[in-house]
Amino acid sequence: MDFNQELAGIKKKIDVQIARHFDKAIRETKKRDAFSAELLSYAKKLTLSGGKRLRPALLIWGYAAAGGKDQKKIMQAAVGIEMIHMFLLIHDDIMDKGKMRHGIDSFNLHFQKVAKKIFKHGDPKDFGDSCALIAGDMLYSIGNNLIINSGFDSKNIAEVVERLQKIVLTTAVGQMQDIHMEYANNVSEKSVLQMYNDKTAQYTFEGPLVLGAMLAGKKDLKFMERISSYAIPLGIAFQIQDDVLGIFGVGKKIGKSSTSDIEEGKQTLLVVKAMENGSKIQVKKMEQILGKKNISKSEIKEFQKIMMETGSLDFAKKMIMGNIAKSKKSLERIEMPKNAKEFLFGIADFMEKRQS
Amino acid sequence: MDFNQELAGIKKKIDVQIARHFDKAIRETKKRDAFSAELLSYAKKLTLSGGKRLRPALLIWGYAAAGGKDQKKIMQAAVGIEMIHMFLLIHDDIMDKGKMRHGIDSFNLHFQKVAKKIFKHGDPKDFGDSCALIAGDMLYSIGNNLIINSGFDSKNIAEVVERLQKIVLTTAVGQMQDIHMEYANNVSEKSVLQMYNDKTAQYTFEGPLVLGAMLAGKKDLKFMERISSYAIPLGIAFQIQDDVLGIFGVGKKIGKSSTSDIEEGKQTLLVVKAMENGSKIQVKKMEQILGKKNISKSEIKEFQKIMMETGSLDFAKKMIMGNIAKSKKSLERIEMPKNAKEFLFGIADFMEKRQS
Repeated sequence: MDFNQELAGIKKKIDVQIARHFDKAIRETKKRDAFSAELLSYAKKLTLSGGKRLRPALLIWGYAAAGGKDQKKIMQAAVGIEMIHMFLLIHDDIMDKGKMRHGIDSFNLHFQKVAKKIFKHGDPKDFGDSCALIAGDMLYSIGNNLIINSGFDSKNIAEVVERLQKIVLTTAVGQMQDIHMEYANNVSEKSVLQMYNDKTAQYTFEGPLVLGAMLAGKKDLKFMERISSYAIPLGIAFQIQDDVLGIFGVGKKIGKSSTSDIEEGKQTLLVVKAMENGSKIQVKKMEQILGKKNISKSEIKEFQKIMMETGSLDFAKKMIMGNIAKSKKSLERIEMPKNAKEFLFGIADFMEKRQS
Repeated sequence: MDFNQELAGIKKKIDVQIARHFDKAIRETKKRDAFSAELLSYAKKLTLSGGKRLRPALLIWGYAAAGGKDQKKIMQAAVGIEMIHMFLLIHDDIMDKGKMRHGIDSFNLHFQKVAKKIFKHGDPKDFGDSCALIAGDMLYSIGNNLIINSGFDSKNIAEVVERLQKIVLTTAVGQMQDIHMEYANNVSEKSVLQMYNDKTAQYTFEGPLVLGAMLAGKKDLKFMERISSYAIPLGIAFQIQDDVLGIFGVGKKIGKSSTSDIEEGKQTLLVVKAMENGSKIQVKKMEQILGKKNISKSEIKEFQKIMMETGSLDFAKKMIMGNIAKSKKSLERIEMPKNAKEFLFGIADFMEKRQS
């Protein structure tokens, strides 16, 4: 199985369903309020403008790994997972003042522009942020209901929805840690890694796989534990890769500016390590650049150079590879249908080469 | 049955449970992140600082009205409903720039002050808003799980949680309408009333009663419809009363400044009617005062005077009384245990005299 081809195939199929469920929600909402329906229309556009559908794919393959067979039901649950993902992204973009998402205007920026155009008074930025806040809340409830109504047995559903709420809670805690670190000064490697566990590894990898297996009715605790020991290191690796791409990546490829992590002052593992190992001059330089708005190209280059010279980039790359290897080793020990295993190995292989 | 005494009794009992469930969530969260646990600690303080527990009481009595008997289970679900209420209030306060809630600092303002104290850089207001945004998301997931884990049959639970998500969705739409009206100019009586239906009547009155009845296993559509025709007019009356209190009420009694509705530029039914019936001079005066920050006492008095002279206050009072009467008439026709009916009549009676 070619992992990228498989993922692209899932994306193609699920995007049709995403569009369909958005259209349904838009129609329903329009009956009450035309403008609220516009929020959902832009959420639809934003969702379909990018993203790999990694979480839906993991839900679908977690389900298959545990022996699940009902493609129609799991597909609807997967749409629910993606809606909840969009809720979290849209809320994150308010907090991070994100301007671009999936290559188009972020939710908040889009409605800021709308306000500028249609209203004579009031603050357009506040309006855009409020729209994004409300749209996020809407997508959370819509996502929950897509899963509740997916057609699985109600006992299963209750357990799955409960677990999903816990995952959202953990992700919210991870987001709080992330923001707190941006404001605070002393950030440790340990606290960054805890945040990566909470904000990314559980949410993006372990969560969808476990939820998928639960939807298949799997109760085997050993199986669930092994799934976790495959998923968590992979998630940590994924997040560190994101950090590397956030500083070294090309803007276009990741759909958001490659300078935004620096401008946002993100306390990534890369930054924390460089602060730890850098000379006084290097630390001072980093402090000057980190969090500064509208940084220049030469400042970006300088920042990247410090990441390399302090050994921070190498450290990050080793962490990525070490975690991927750990993940693969765990996967070998899990019993599951051959094609599911191939897919999960495929992700790990893909991550070893990931450039965007 | 004395309604106020009954409500106070429910508040006393449920506040013990609210504290207990918050404490549990705080302990759990602390394991991951101390600061996120602080969010929940302040949410606990805020919740217990005020509020009448009207929604939990309606859930409990909706359950009793439909024949439900398990006090322990319904109590936990009622805590869930109150947590979700806090989620919505905390998010609303971000959007409305609320500074006071239940007589203490609003969530956003509290953490703005925290940031000012503990961080050397970064914008304290942004930090406070982010804390409130995240805490709201956390409370939404915690609230859902309190209901999922309340111990009722899972088929019932799935249906109830689904309905609850729909109620949250409708409330979010109502909030969007509310904000949109503040920015837009031409607001009609019809659109204001639609917003009151979506933002208040469904959410505060119909929702908890219907959810309570569903938890008791009630499937009788006629019963549900009648509950709605009792609850919706009562909710509309409640919201119009809120508007009156928001302009004429004494700050202390409602736990937030009585000028805030005027300063926020809220397009309430009172305002819309006064705009419709006012003279050119009165309309101009209202436009000058509405949405203005730090308005003076004489401006408040002038604004109140216009509400009276245009007949807008009388109109609002008639609407309140008409809706309460409609609600009582519907209630008469619903079959339910005597004490439940007494309680529901009690609310209507209370509303006729409500001063805060």
